[in-house]
Amino acid sequence: MTGANILPEERLRRRIHIHDPTMRNALSELFGTALLVLNTWIQINLGWGLAIAFCVYSCSKTSGGHFNPAVSLAMLTLGKLSTKDCAIYCVVQTVGAFIGAMGSFGIYYDQLVNFAGNDRTIEGPHATAGSFCSFPAPHLSNLTCFFDQIAGTGLLVFFVCVVIDKRNGIPNAAHPLLFGLVVMMIGTCMGMNLGYPINPARDLGPRIFTLFIYGSEVFTYHNCYFWIPIFAPVVGAVLAAWTYHLFIGAHIPDDNKVHILDDPKVPLNKI
Amino acid sequence: MTGANILPEERLRRRIHIHDPTMRNALSELFGTALLVLNTWIQINLGWGLAIAFCVYSCSKTSGGHFNPAVSLAMLTLGKLSTKDCAIYCVVQTVGAFIGAMGSFGIYYDQLVNFAGNDRTIEGPHATAGSFCSFPAPHLSNLTCFFDQIAGTGLLVFFVCVVIDKRNGIPNAAHPLLFGLVVMMIGTCMGMNLGYPINPARDLGPRIFTLFIYGSEVFTYHNCYFWIPIFAPVVGAVLAAWTYHLFIGAHIPDDNKVHILDDPKVPLNKI
Amino acid sequence: MTGANILPEERLRRRIHIHDPTMRNALSELFGTALLVLNTWIQINLGWGLAIAFCVYSCSKTSGGHFNPAVSLAMLTLGKLSTKDCAIYCVVQTVGAFIGAMGSFGIYYDQLVNFAGNDRTIEGPHATAGSFCSFPAPHLSNLTCFFDQIAGTGLLVFFVCVVIDKRNGIPNAAHPLLFGLVVMMIGTCMGMNLGYPINPARDLGPRIFTLFIYGSEVFTYHNCYFWIPIFAPVVGAVLAAWTYHLFIGAHIPDDNKVHILDDPKVPLNKI
Amino acid sequence: MTGANILPEERLRRRIHIHDPTMRNALSELFGTALLVLNTWIQINLGWGLAIAFCVYSCSKTSGGHFNPAVSLAMLTLGKLSTKDCAIYCVVQTVGAFIGAMGSFGIYYDQLVNFAGNDRTIEGPHATAGSFCSFPAPHLSNLTCFFDQIAGTGLLVFFVCVVIDKRNGIPNAAHPLLFGLVVMMIGTCMGMNLGYPINPARDLGPRIFTLFIYGSEVFTYHNCYFWIPIFAPVVGAVLAAWTYHLFIGAHIPDDNKVHILDDPKVPLNKI
Repeated sequence: MTGANILPEERLRRRIHIHDPTMRNALSELFGTALLVLNTWIQINLGWGLAIAFCVYSCSKTSGGHFNPAVSLAMLTLGKLSTKDCAIYCVVQTVGAFIGAMGSFGIYYDQLVNFAGNDRTIEGPHATAGSFCSFPAPHLSNLTCFFDQIAGTGLLVFFVCVVIDKRNGIPNAAHPLLFGLVVMMIGTCMGMNLGYPINPARDLGPRIFTLFIYGSEVFTYHNCYFWIPIFAPVVGAVLAAWTYHLFIGAHIPDDNKVHILDDPKVPLNKI
Repeated sequence: MTGANILPEERLRRRIHIHDPTMRNALSELFGTALLVLNTWIQINLGWGLAIAFCVYSCSKTSGGHFNPAVSLAMLTLGKLSTKDCAIYCVVQTVGAFIGAMGSFGIYYDQLVNFAGNDRTIEGPHATAGSFCSFPAPHLSNLTCFFDQIAGTGLLVFFVCVVIDKRNGIPNAAHPLLFGLVVMMIGTCMGMNLGYPINPARDLGPRIFTLFIYGSEVFTYHNCYFWIPIFAPVVGAVLAAWTYHLFIGAHIPDDNKVHILDDPKVPLNKI
Repeated sequence: MTGANILPEERLRRRIHIHDPTMRNALSELFGTALLVLNTWIQINLGWGLAIAFCVYSCSKTSGGHFNPAVSLAMLTLGKLSTKDCAIYCVVQTVGAFIGAMGSFGIYYDQLVNFAGNDRTIEGPHATAGSFCSFPAPHLSNLTCFFDQIAGTGLLVFFVCVVIDKRNGIPNAAHPLLFGLVVMMIGTCMGMNLGYPINPARDLGPRIFTLFIYGSEVFTYHNCYFWIPIFAPVVGAVLAAWTYHLFIGAHIPDDNKVHILDDPKVPLNKI
Repeated sequence: MTGANILPEERLRRRIHIHDPTMRNALSELFGTALLVLNTWIQINLGWGLAIAFCVYSCSKTSGGHFNPAVSLAMLTLGKLSTKDCAIYCVVQTVGAFIGAMGSFGIYYDQLVNFAGNDRTIEGPHATAGSFCSFPAPHLSNLTCFFDQIAGTGLLVFFVCVVIDKRNGIPNAAHPLLFGLVVMMIGTCMGMNLGYPINPARDLGPRIFTLFIYGSEVFTYHNCYFWIPIFAPVVGAVLAAWTYHLFIGAHIPDDNKVHILDDPKVPLNKI
């Protein structure tokens, strides 16, 4: 490929390529998280799962596509992310989620007015705040919410660790799709309690945005519930990552003989 | 493989193979878009996404399977399609969508009469025009529709660029399926406003067909809404294509070491 | 692998392996079609598509898993099946579908009695015959049914030809899954008229079984509708197979340069 | 990779790696089955299928991820599992399912109280026992249940044998996902009778747990139905495994020429 025959996108790349990995990864996390939240005003399992998958595809070769401080913190404990990068990721993820919520608000403003008129409420027949971030039903205790978030985020991170463990032999190109399917699974199996925020940035970023629309009740509601989807996912994520390695990952045998015998490319009469 | 033992399909190919790439690709776009629209009288997310996937599979080695002038125009700006080819694609895509709408009308004529009798209306309890192309609900402003179409088509083209960027390492055979999943995702996440036309040909072609059935109101309805799903998708597509390269694509590092380390085929004791 | 250490399934194989390809393929088609029909008493799109996929996986290395006389006849015209094999396939597919219907009847007999008591009717509130084979609604003309079956089976065979055309580069291991997704797509997009039988064996086999339960009305109903899902699918299948090769397949260029450039395994700095 | 630069998860692995294969596999089966049941308080087909897929992914390189005594017993008859390992698997799978049921109970306790108050019943408007294990509707005879379980588990094991048969050439990394899709298919196609337990451990483990909540009626209900989802799945599994090999597997031809001709990697002008 000579310079004369170069594609416009290549020309752009040579001009603007960011050489600092932290910078370019932070940009990816910011952009990806905004896209993700923009993409999911309506939390439908199938769509949300696919949104995760494609947002991760888009950032898979830069930041890796965490979009979730709980995942980033788990990766920090696994030694796959530096402390500095982890801190930056957490901030830009939250900012990205804020921007995404703002974008969704703009696109669906007419629908919101049509549905709720001038009402901007968290509860009641015209409640709309739940489209931005999670608000538990009154009959759920905050303790249940805490364990629900631990379990939900734990499942997510557990299976993320399964997928990225090279010993499990799952091709890289399939990882983002499998992450999306994991989220779909958690949504279908465990979404009953809270609609599975399982992501501190995805819950806090839009919640800060709703502060300007619904007032401070978004933080005080349900005995200051807001901190639960911030801290519980982190606890669940770190526990789950190490649970995987403690109970399964560390015990995967190293014999590659298995792989060769199972390889469908090996002619059968050679076995 | 000797000539004596040749398959009938191979014999056909040698006789009729079109050697002009523009011609054969235009034929593919015409055929594929017709098939796509024929295939989707009823816009159901899952089915529509799969229809996209398989129509793209069928044209993946000829035209590539755009079926969408907004996609073709974005590819033009990325230098992946000549101006002449782009113009031809846009025309045959619209003609193809017109033919597909005609075919659907024929197949479902009995159902239509059964449902609506002699009524051919855009609004009201016997409305059927919405099966052909998009008609916004009265409470949506045309400005909202414009941004909705920019966002919807933008998401489509953004993820198309992610998938086809060779640096993201997604196998070619998976591309059409992923395109279908992207459309499914947009349908589930963003279809609330307009039922996501996000394709000028898919909206205009059938709309021209409905002119003969429902009269000129299909163009004048909702303050001449019809031009929005023609222009807004193009704006969204071009913006999104360059947004991807500007914010993410251009910053993907070039180190192939990553790939080798991650390759599950490499024996683990060699790392 | 020495003889001493041989798996039980290998020992069985050496004892019973059928060396006549026609025989073993006929066995596969019989078994697979029975399994398919047994598997789909309730025609739900997702489940039916997956049932197709897995039944084809099970026979992919013997007969190929047609399970459908229309597909077999299309393959005959494409020179991929001998006349004798095609005739045998059609017979065993119909017998297999008969056996599958019988099995479903047994498994769901309690449910049927619970729902319909002693009524065994094609129409009305206690109608159950539609679980076995297709019965069009009264408002559909037989002409519409005919074209509906041509379109439905045509789409099926068209995309089957896309998938199996080696020039499209779709890995063999993905074929059965893609066939299943095609059927799912046809079900979601086109099932409105008839519930998409699109398979002469799948409709006729169970219909013969219902003859013993519901009487001869299963054949005389709706102006002898029964012959439409037998002949129309064959017409649609043959038309579609050649349509694919005429409009698209024959025009796929032969340059392998494309493949090498697109191969994600090629290091990027080598392009 | 030098020792200095080692990841925390690697350091853990070197310290705790279990060298006895039986031990580490039993741990995987225990952990995986618990996770599976925890994951599926609400039995929704899509979610349940994905839960199977990801739980199998997590144990695919240790025990293989049976999570089902019927599958383990079928593998025993196929010579792929020793009698000792099979016995251990069956016990830990049941214990794992018990633990999973306990976890689900904890996470969803508030919802349960909200729905049913102090009622803990198997039948009636406040029935909740069916969330733990299967309880047939009164109109189903135990004989029907028995054959339903044979058919359901038979289909599962039949397709598991299809997928793992190396002669069918399905890549290993796709196996767990295909197992999940099989379960989804069985759920959509055959779940009408019993909600498809098709797994002795998944039914018995939670049933023992419900003994402490609902009393002994969970075992005496419906003429001591409880033993049917224990024995029928085993019968179905063994029958199905050998049915596959008898009717299809044993007859797959050995010619690798087919594979080479079909390999999409072979340049087309070489054929």
